[in-house]
Amino acid sequence: MAHPLWQIRPDTTYLNHGSFGPPSRPVVEACRHWQDELAQQPMDVFVRRQESALVAARERLARWLGTAAENLALIDNATWAMNVVAESVVLEPGDNVVLSDHEYGAVERIWERACRRASAQLKTAVLPAHFQDPDEVVDALMSACNERTRLIVVSHITSPTAITLPVAQICERARQQGIAVCVDGPHALAQIPLDLDQLDCDFYTASCHKWLSAFFGSGFLYVHPRQQPSIRPLLLSWGKLPPDEPSKWYDEFFWLGTRDVSALLTIPVALDVLEEIGWEHFRQHGHQLARFARHQLVERLGTSCLVDDDPCWYSNMAHVELPVQDGSQLQQALWDQHRIEVPVVHWQDRWFIRVSCYLYNEQAEVDQLVEALAGLLEI
Amino acid sequence: MAHPLWQIRPDTTYLNHGSFGPPSRPVVEACRHWQDELAQQPMDVFVRRQESALVAARERLARWLGTAAENLALIDNATWAMNVVAESVVLEPGDNVVLSDHEYGAVERIWERACRRASAQLKTAVLPAHFQDPDEVVDALMSACNERTRLIVVSHITSPTAITLPVAQICERARQQGIAVCVDGPHALAQIPLDLDQLDCDFYTASCHKWLSAFFGSGFLYVHPRQQPSIRPLLLSWGKLPPDEPSKWYDEFFWLGTRDVSALLTIPVALDVLEEIGWEHFRQHGHQLARFARHQLVERLGTSCLVDDDPCWYSNMAHVELPVQDGSQLQQALWDQHRIEVPVVHWQDRWFIRVSCYLYNEQAEVDQLVEALAGLLEI
Repeated sequence: MAHPLWQIRPDTTYLNHGSFGPPSRPVVEACRHWQDELAQQPMDVFVRRQESALVAARERLARWLGTAAENLALIDNATWAMNVVAESVVLEPGDNVVLSDHEYGAVERIWERACRRASAQLKTAVLPAHFQDPDEVVDALMSACNERTRLIVVSHITSPTAITLPVAQICERARQQGIAVCVDGPHALAQIPLDLDQLDCDFYTASCHKWLSAFFGSGFLYVHPRQQPSIRPLLLSWGKLPPDEPSKWYDEFFWLGTRDVSALLTIPVALDVLEEIGWEHFRQHGHQLARFARHQLVERLGTSCLVDDDPCWYSNMAHVELPVQDGSQLQQALWDQHRIEVPVVHWQDRWFIRVSCYLYNEQAEVDQLVEALAGLLEI
Repeated sequence: MAHPLWQIRPDTTYLNHGSFGPPSRPVVEACRHWQDELAQQPMDVFVRRQESALVAARERLARWLGTAAENLALIDNATWAMNVVAESVVLEPGDNVVLSDHEYGAVERIWERACRRASAQLKTAVLPAHFQDPDEVVDALMSACNERTRLIVVSHITSPTAITLPVAQICERARQQGIAVCVDGPHALAQIPLDLDQLDCDFYTASCHKWLSAFFGSGFLYVHPRQQPSIRPLLLSWGKLPPDEPSKWYDEFFWLGTRDVSALLTIPVALDVLEEIGWEHFRQHGHQLARFARHQLVERLGTSCLVDDDPCWYSNMAHVELPVQDGSQLQQALWDQHRIEVPVVHWQDRWFIRVSCYLYNEQAEVDQLVEALAGLLEI
């Protein structure tokens, strides 16, 4: 039941939209349209139309995200956005930053460097071994904080384990203690509803090329007005032109030297595509299939998941533990022998499989994965 | 005589390849090829083929530039590369950085911030009012240096004024005084021969989407081995994977989160295209036309140029002073009334026109520009 708007290579069973969600045809066409215009008349795009197109894309995205456009900067991806946060949050010697133990490896590296440079401490909060009660998650995170905690960095949906974390409650408790929160949200966008003003976090980083299926290299940084004065861009170029108005925190992000920002300009098209399909259908299809995958894998492999079977804990992506001591060859074997793309994740000395379920995926593909995996594991 | 490999919009007289050189058809096709593969099977590109393709592109570029691939990092553009240099050069309070008075505005901003952060001083060397003797240029630059000068930043071909500076002599004199040199080379690439090992500068920043006509968002940073230990990347992501080897200075530049690096992968195609056409033809055509433009404009406008009519001072791009007090509306008027794209530059309270001459340009276009300009200036 391949979806007509996505053009997955016919030889491939693609169950990894979460890592690199391919864009839909209208998005690819929109990207090409901008690139064609660039190739034929670059001045007309770069000098006369690009900034207003970026402003319009940001406006559209902001409306969907429930915040003001002025709180967003369009940035290539969540990793880049997180680097900006790490450059901007002021850390003094002895301060600390708290991450959960489910954070993304590149994010850990970013904060290790930021803390090392500032002689601050990077602390890891150990979340519950099994996720049942949101309060336990919040407690686990907050108990790693102290009066020197300047920031909590927490995923909206975790990358290695595909778990939806209770970020609204985390933000609320952190606010009570005067601790800023940066939500790392690349997997949350489109998978689950998001209202940034209501969430009231300090920073939100995301990629639009995952579940939203915009073109590769499209994301954003949300900064709450209370944090905007502290933002320090990593890259400087011309800044706001003409430079006669007082500059805004996001001005330095519009123009980073000559490069192709067509990917960012596909964000409105990606929103159109999924709105046309319908969020309800998009999410139900994905969640039902993820639930099916989880159930089949648990049954066949005889293992378990870190979360209860409840949509509050996972959406269109499911993780299941693998009954192996060393799964380092499995992902490549699934590709080499079965042409299945699915990530096998090493997390806390355990091995998991993470199945992404998108509009173009169907039950037969999950069945194929389960059989392939059982064969490789000789179960 | 529009060149068959470039697809300039038919309504446009494009005399601004120096700002935004549009890519040739084979480059656009190469870019699309990678993007098509990304849209159909992102894992196959991102995980299995992208790094080796980047390594191959870098290798090819390095051979052409007369240096080892290990001295280059592919980076979106020269501005970005300059930001990395500014992040990496260690400045102590009281140190200074010397720029010429012909440097690019964004480069000035980058070094203003770097110097301000370090309580260092940004010094501007005033180059000769008329360029005749390379030694005078070197003397002017060196006389702005003192024992606290940590770095000279100088364009290979200046942006506002299109002047080729004697960077080999500058590097030699700076070496004698133990001062590092960063050559800002976005306009030099392809316009003039370049041998980086022979030049022996400390840093070289460039964009491949100008005169080399690679796709937008392709450039590099060259770092001499003596400076490589000091390089600090602005953005962190996963770094070298697997992380078991000692990391190299360029490892952090290969993967900056998920984004589309197809532009960087078009560099070898851009080199193929110009090699096939022939460097000699490419440069002669451009220089002859630039010389013609310079001559016609000087004759018609009754003004002059900052440099003698000698290929040592300019190549495929010519500047001519405009006989106006305020040229701020001219560039837009040339576009609005004549569909001519050419930059009108404000530099040191004077106004210049900068004409880029590429393979697709011809004398009739220069004639058209001269007449349009004379009409607008009522000469």
